[in-house]
Amino acid sequence: MAGVSPTEPRPLAQTLDLGFARLDLGRLARTGDPETVLAAGKSPDEVVAILRELAAHSQGRAVLATRCADGTLAACRAAFGERAVIDGRGRTVVLGAVPQPLGAVAVVTAGTSDLPVALEAVTTVGVHGSAADLVVDVGVAGLHRILAEQERLARADAVVVVAGMDGALPSVVAGLVRTPVIAVPTSVGYGAAFGGLAPLLAMLSACAPGVSVVNIDNGFGAGVTAARIARAVARG
Amino acid sequence: MAGVSPTEPRPLAQTLDLGFARLDLGRLARTGDPETVLAAGKSPDEVVAILRELAAHSQGRAVLATRCADGTLAACRAAFGERAVIDGRGRTVVLGAVPQPLGAVAVVTAGTSDLPVALEAVTTVGVHGSAADLVVDVGVAGLHRILAEQERLARADAVVVVAGMDGALPSVVAGLVRTPVIAVPTSVGYGAAFGGLAPLLAMLSACAPGVSVVNIDNGFGAGVTAARIARAVARG
Amino acid sequence: MAGVSPTEPRPLAQTLDLGFARLDLGRLARTGDPETVLAAGKSPDEVVAILRELAAHSQGRAVLATRCADGTLAACRAAFGERAVIDGRGRTVVLGAVPQPLGAVAVVTAGTSDLPVALEAVTTVGVHGSAADLVVDVGVAGLHRILAEQERLARADAVVVVAGMDGALPSVVAGLVRTPVIAVPTSVGYGAAFGGLAPLLAMLSACAPGVSVVNIDNGFGAGVTAARIARAVARG
Amino acid sequence: MAGVSPTEPRPLAQTLDLGFARLDLGRLARTGDPETVLAAGKSPDEVVAILRELAAHSQGRAVLATRCADGTLAACRAAFGERAVIDGRGRTVVLGAVPQPLGAVAVVTAGTSDLPVALEAVTTVGVHGSAADLVVDVGVAGLHRILAEQERLARADAVVVVAGMDGALPSVVAGLVRTPVIAVPTSVGYGAAFGGLAPLLAMLSACAPGVSVVNIDNGFGAGVTAARIARAVARG
Amino acid sequence: MAGVSPTEPRPLAQTLDLGFARLDLGRLARTGDPETVLAAGKSPDEVVAILRELAAHSQGRAVLATRCADGTLAACRAAFGERAVIDGRGRTVVLGAVPQPLGAVAVVTAGTSDLPVALEAVTTVGVHGSAADLVVDVGVAGLHRILAEQERLARADAVVVVAGMDGALPSVVAGLVRTPVIAVPTSVGYGAAFGGLAPLLAMLSACAPGVSVVNIDNGFGAGVTAARIARAVARG
Amino acid sequence: MAGVSPTEPRPLAQTLDLGFARLDLGRLARTGDPETVLAAGKSPDEVVAILRELAAHSQGRAVLATRCADGTLAACRAAFGERAVIDGRGRTVVLGAVPQPLGAVAVVTAGTSDLPVALEAVTTVGVHGSAADLVVDVGVAGLHRILAEQERLARADAVVVVAGMDGALPSVVAGLVRTPVIAVPTSVGYGAAFGGLAPLLAMLSACAPGVSVVNIDNGFGAGVTAARIARAVARG
Amino acid sequence: MAGVSPTEPRPLAQTLDLGFARLDLGRLARTGDPETVLAAGKSPDEVVAILRELAAHSQGRAVLATRCADGTLAACRAAFGERAVIDGRGRTVVLGAVPQPLGAVAVVTAGTSDLPVALEAVTTVGVHGSAADLVVDVGVAGLHRILAEQERLARADAVVVVAGMDGALPSVVAGLVRTPVIAVPTSVGYGAAFGGLAPLLAMLSACAPGVSVVNIDNGFGAGVTAARIARAVARG
Amino acid sequence: MAGVSPTEPRPLAQTLDLGFARLDLGRLARTGDPETVLAAGKSPDEVVAILRELAAHSQGRAVLATRCADGTLAACRAAFGERAVIDGRGRTVVLGAVPQPLGAVAVVTAGTSDLPVALEAVTTVGVHGSAADLVVDVGVAGLHRILAEQERLARADAVVVVAGMDGALPSVVAGLVRTPVIAVPTSVGYGAAFGGLAPLLAMLSACAPGVSVVNIDNGFGAGVTAARIARAVARG
Repeated sequence: MAGVSPTEPRPLAQTLDLGFARLDLGRLARTGDPETVLAAGKSPDEVVAILRELAAHSQGRAVLATRCADGTLAACRAAFGERAVIDGRGRTVVLGAVPQPLGAVAVVTAGTSDLPVALEAVTTVGVHGSAADLVVDVGVAGLHRILAEQERLARADAVVVVAGMDGALPSVVAGLVRTPVIAVPTSVGYGAAFGGLAPLLAMLSACAPGVSVVNIDNGFGAGVTAARIARAVARG
Repeated sequence: MAGVSPTEPRPLAQTLDLGFARLDLGRLARTGDPETVLAAGKSPDEVVAILRELAAHSQGRAVLATRCADGTLAACRAAFGERAVIDGRGRTVVLGAVPQPLGAVAVVTAGTSDLPVALEAVTTVGVHGSAADLVVDVGVAGLHRILAEQERLARADAVVVVAGMDGALPSVVAGLVRTPVIAVPTSVGYGAAFGGLAPLLAMLSACAPGVSVVNIDNGFGAGVTAARIARAVARG
Repeated sequence: MAGVSPTEPRPLAQTLDLGFARLDLGRLARTGDPETVLAAGKSPDEVVAILRELAAHSQGRAVLATRCADGTLAACRAAFGERAVIDGRGRTVVLGAVPQPLGAVAVVTAGTSDLPVALEAVTTVGVHGSAADLVVDVGVAGLHRILAEQERLARADAVVVVAGMDGALPSVVAGLVRTPVIAVPTSVGYGAAFGGLAPLLAMLSACAPGVSVVNIDNGFGAGVTAARIARAVARG
Repeated sequence: MAGVSPTEPRPLAQTLDLGFARLDLGRLARTGDPETVLAAGKSPDEVVAILRELAAHSQGRAVLATRCADGTLAACRAAFGERAVIDGRGRTVVLGAVPQPLGAVAVVTAGTSDLPVALEAVTTVGVHGSAADLVVDVGVAGLHRILAEQERLARADAVVVVAGMDGALPSVVAGLVRTPVIAVPTSVGYGAAFGGLAPLLAMLSACAPGVSVVNIDNGFGAGVTAARIARAVARG
Repeated sequence: MAGVSPTEPRPLAQTLDLGFARLDLGRLARTGDPETVLAAGKSPDEVVAILRELAAHSQGRAVLATRCADGTLAACRAAFGERAVIDGRGRTVVLGAVPQPLGAVAVVTAGTSDLPVALEAVTTVGVHGSAADLVVDVGVAGLHRILAEQERLARADAVVVVAGMDGALPSVVAGLVRTPVIAVPTSVGYGAAFGGLAPLLAMLSACAPGVSVVNIDNGFGAGVTAARIARAVARG
Repeated sequence: MAGVSPTEPRPLAQTLDLGFARLDLGRLARTGDPETVLAAGKSPDEVVAILRELAAHSQGRAVLATRCADGTLAACRAAFGERAVIDGRGRTVVLGAVPQPLGAVAVVTAGTSDLPVALEAVTTVGVHGSAADLVVDVGVAGLHRILAEQERLARADAVVVVAGMDGALPSVVAGLVRTPVIAVPTSVGYGAAFGGLAPLLAMLSACAPGVSVVNIDNGFGAGVTAARIARAVARG
Repeated sequence: MAGVSPTEPRPLAQTLDLGFARLDLGRLARTGDPETVLAAGKSPDEVVAILRELAAHSQGRAVLATRCADGTLAACRAAFGERAVIDGRGRTVVLGAVPQPLGAVAVVTAGTSDLPVALEAVTTVGVHGSAADLVVDVGVAGLHRILAEQERLARADAVVVVAGMDGALPSVVAGLVRTPVIAVPTSVGYGAAFGGLAPLLAMLSACAPGVSVVNIDNGFGAGVTAARIARAVARG
Repeated sequence: MAGVSPTEPRPLAQTLDLGFARLDLGRLARTGDPETVLAAGKSPDEVVAILRELAAHSQGRAVLATRCADGTLAACRAAFGERAVIDGRGRTVVLGAVPQPLGAVAVVTAGTSDLPVALEAVTTVGVHGSAADLVVDVGVAGLHRILAEQERLARADAVVVVAGMDGALPSVVAGLVRTPVIAVPTSVGYGAAFGGLAPLLAMLSACAPGVSVVNIDNGFGAGVTAARIARAVARG
């Protein structure tokens, strides 16, 4: 595999070349957010190696891997032990200390099955410097559930709404709050939900303004956006 | 055009052959609902001819044409005058007297732009023997609007919910009522609504049970189903 | 996993918060139908816990779990023993006594492979208070099969038609009966059936009025709607 | 537009080069069917020119243009006068004498709106050397209509079934006859019919064997296939 | 599972009710083709039971099961031994003697990977009373391969063309032969072939007339149609 | 049109019922944003009537109509004269004074053809209380164009990126800035852009975090979200 | 329209800012190809203005506008007179002298209706510095047509193949030549061709290697790629 | 399985018939590229047999198998030992000596997960007679990575760009280089990436000219095209 065998890392300007990956060490300075490892499509060894290098260049600040399969979670547990916080349900690994939180993000789910995606968002918010408040199972089939939580929503600087099936919850929430709503469609559902297509299209067509949407099951992306908002608002 | 030129109507058992159409005169006896004319794809002359024949065989009971283009509405006005009730917005023509209503159907719309489809449903309910109550513009972006109408919903034997965009309203309504909810997705919306695909998929994936769905913009189909239910309940 | 660990259940108004789920105890009073557990996406332990809590708040009336994987069926068998009725083919668990049936629902399948979905509908009808009559394998390729069963169809207050492949059966049935037809497309078929898309679109485009459609393989949804109709008709 | 200006026709082996088109004069000898002009996407002048050249090389046998817009029909009328048979509804032009028919093809439509496609098939069958029998408006919502025509179907060597919406008719017909059924989905319908996608998928998933399918609205293609079968059977 | 437990078979007119299936014993008399078992979606026991019943009512003529999984093949081998002909690649089981062949069908594949589908077609042709000639791996990337087989194609009464990927072969073949071409798209290919969608759409849009199309991977359907044609031509 | 004729407005709690529309007067208090008129699907008269009522209840603050067809723009010009600011390219009407801006939003387009959507966003940002800076035609085919504008991007509290075709610009921008990026796919492009589907999917799959997406051509939705962020950050 | 009114052009490094467009004057030096105007989505005045500015900065070398509507063609004729070469069928405007051609490109069409796209490619090849040879109407339904032109194909350095419907021609051509084949799917066809989707998917799944694909109807893109290849080969 | 059992190979003109496959031995002479084995859909034994035959007829020049599953790789290792070069990550087997390289191809990936596809391209380029230079993980989220490699890109005669997710990299690269860019969308990504559909559509809609696209994950196809270009340029 000429050209991709891991030779000695060559430091380019703010780039660390591992042969199979080219780490963007300047991302934190440029965007305020550190580089994250999307573990899907990488071997457990590659994930461990990248996390280790990122941590070595992060001045102790937490680095994050998402979408870790069981083998990758085990490899991280073996490699990092107590230094890593591992969430088997949200499939995340956090290595290093999360920053002091600035601002607050509410993470709301329509159903119980949306929890793994919501947990990825909760962890991401923490690593990216804000505090997450998780509100579970408040789908629109029983409206009193979300209406009973309006105060918690009002305390947040941004609201992440995680829903599969009909994807109706973001429209309802956006009609109740003053903050941006970041909607996360999930692959929860079957048949005509088409793996998340139904809630994705519904959320993009939300009848209440103030809703923007991330990819299906992308708790990470929603968490980054929400944390950017909450941090900025808290800083003023 | 051998074989399709309108020769003298040949009466088959409960069928009237106009050459270009074969009317199912037994439908009323068989299903309780008279045959209806879907005007789309037929010439104004054909629609007038079919309505006239259906009326001649209906013992004075109303017959209905739906999805009439402007030319067809004008042709019906010219042909039938006062005997026809013509709704330019719902694009329906009713010829003859509607039956005495049995039971009640609520027809609810999420927005103002859903009105034409809702009006098709309202007219259909009447022709098919039940009474319709129209509740307009109570979409989920302002929840208090639908919550304020719960009593009207509770008086109905079936609820038709007409919504485009995110198609969220049927899930909310079905969580509030005891009757079947017939959901009608509309082509209202743009972009990722994909001509009604978004609300169609969302409604099929509704998170509240008791929802069934008809074709996009199919106020007629929803009206027939709702009237069948309301009539049966009223008859006991 | 702060916020989702099962602490002591907090009773909100008609809501029971299990941490990972928020049970809507008011649903029965509000809609006439008890809350049901969609087991897909939940762990066996979660399903058992939710069923137990729902049963504890249902005054002995049956509660239902659908789409149970083998592990969940086993966990329910271990937890509830004789108190639960478990259908391995329809993948349902019923805990508690089903109500005295009101009215009748015919559940019709086009083919043998549609049976699991039909069985989910049959069980749902029973739990929701009506009686189901199952008519199997009467697809339109041999018309005499459905024509021979017209009397059974005529005895029902609502007809559920379960079909995959071309989804042609609901159009045929709706031309023969006076009751609403609830069509259930199934994922039976291959290639251009696209996992149930072909019968779904065909049923939404049914050429006979009186047909409404639920999600692919959604025997549960069809059963709830049909039982609502049959109960209402029986009560008058 | 160097290279495409109509210079003098260069005869290649069985090919006639008009600059903008290259006519396959050997097709009749090779396949038994003469080359046909698909008028869509060609200017009226081009269609007239191609028809004229094809007729000049066909020994008086009829040549056919399909999908002619109004302007093309008018140009053909002006150019060919009585020598052309023009069908404004099926949008075909036939120039020259149709062959003596061999065998018989039944062309069946589900509804009145399917007529234009059926007429394209009828004309094509004639030009390709067989006799067509047109059976109109026998959709499955009123089964007695098709059941009453079984004898006409039984007399055919091949059956073309033209249907939009749910595309259910070919499955029903194929369960009643011994001949191949060529199914033509039409763009009749709206919403979830998606311009003919619903009947196309349904027909491809037909639950009765013996059905093959052509493109949406492709009466021509069905006619060619059916005529090939009928001619071959008649010849034995 | 009231209503579906296999009680004693009730003979309806030409129907045999096994509880879980309703066999259409009149199909052979009505359509010339015996009922076939689509094994997918049925348990091995069900397939064995249906084959046994069909054979008992077929006067010794062969009956066919298609799409048999390994377990079903094994169950048939155990149940029927030498009396069944089992093809593990085409996934078919034939029980009983195939009829004396009438007419000939060429079955052509574009590539080696299309063989399983072609073998299903070959077996189906035999069971349905005609003779199959298999021509393998003559895709259009090397045109001389199909051009070298033109004589074999010319001897057939119908040609089945099996192709995945670009689905180009039917257009080429239909330009070379006088018989109907039945095109079978296969799921061979990856990426933008989308499980057979690419060749399906390409074949439906074939630029040569005389092509009709069956479902993706549906060698059975193509075989039935081709055999119907070949038998009829041979009988004259 | 019983039930929808505009009778005297009935004031419900914070709702104004015009018969054909039910205005949500409490939206400003509840969400910080006033109700907006989506003119598509409404008649010019309806738009004028709704704008007039909204303005009458807004204490002089600007109200907005979007997606106004030419007839609606003309009707607003006739009805409101100098009091309305009308943008024929962005298809917006603003009635009343825009608020004093808080914070700043950069609105960036990939190409010239994206301008109408960007102008809708610019106007929306102003009506919703923030200041917009428009950066035009900086697509990724010439990277120096966006790199030359990094300072302007850095001054914004949120960045709206409007792009059709490949939808590549949001990924590039999100790698350069610290603020949330709201991506707006446009229907600019042809063929495989599928009316905006290509950039929509690409943006949802953006390889840089911090991107959320709104509906195709939805400059309004992006403007509301961006203004909510900018206002909140400016307020601290 | 603050911010987009054309003020005095501000020269950035190799960029010319017209307010509504930002011309990439460095593209020729950077990529060897001058910037082109995609006229779709721009007003006639904008196209004229951009062409004029590009010409003023091109040292007399030809500049190109594609996809010009009739109004834009007329505006260019009025503005540039004899200096522009205008092709109404290919919808292109060329202003200035085309370069001396290097290398040769064959542009091949499957049918007559593919001509407009092929002409766009022919003109693009010329403007981008190579010579085009147009071969028309050699689709695979009559194989002898393309086989007769093999020598012309062999003289080219790259082959552009333009085809709609089944998109079969590129696979055939790529099996015959040594050069790269650039395939252009066209929107020619109907029904299941889905506006070019069928040939697009077929070409992407071409069974012969050496085929790459551009967007539907994108004669321009194919021309640029082909000219890049031909120029490079000619230069060696 | 009459007709497909491997009898003695029959040599047709430049074709070798193995019964289950028909090898196109004339491809090298005709197109400059030897026949390759697409291993997917073939058994390990078949792949070994075909490779052996191809090698026996290739005068020592390397032959290639792609998309080899683990079992096929093992079978090749067992059959060919040291004579084969096997890449488990790119899933290729090369048997025989690769030609002396002519010209150069840059193979560029957006991310680490795109490596397997890029390795297939690298190997293909070598077997097809050119030299590959692999540039890994230079996606647009960190633009400095690709900008730092511009010199390597400039040394290539063709550039292959491999990217999943948003597919943005080809547009950026095509704006920087003078050579054709062959874009390879990958199935890397999730949700709205839809298995490679998102980058496929984005690349087809690339906003920079000079980009052509191959099938999802088709490193082989890109490699063949790129090598054809590089060889031709090197030969002049």
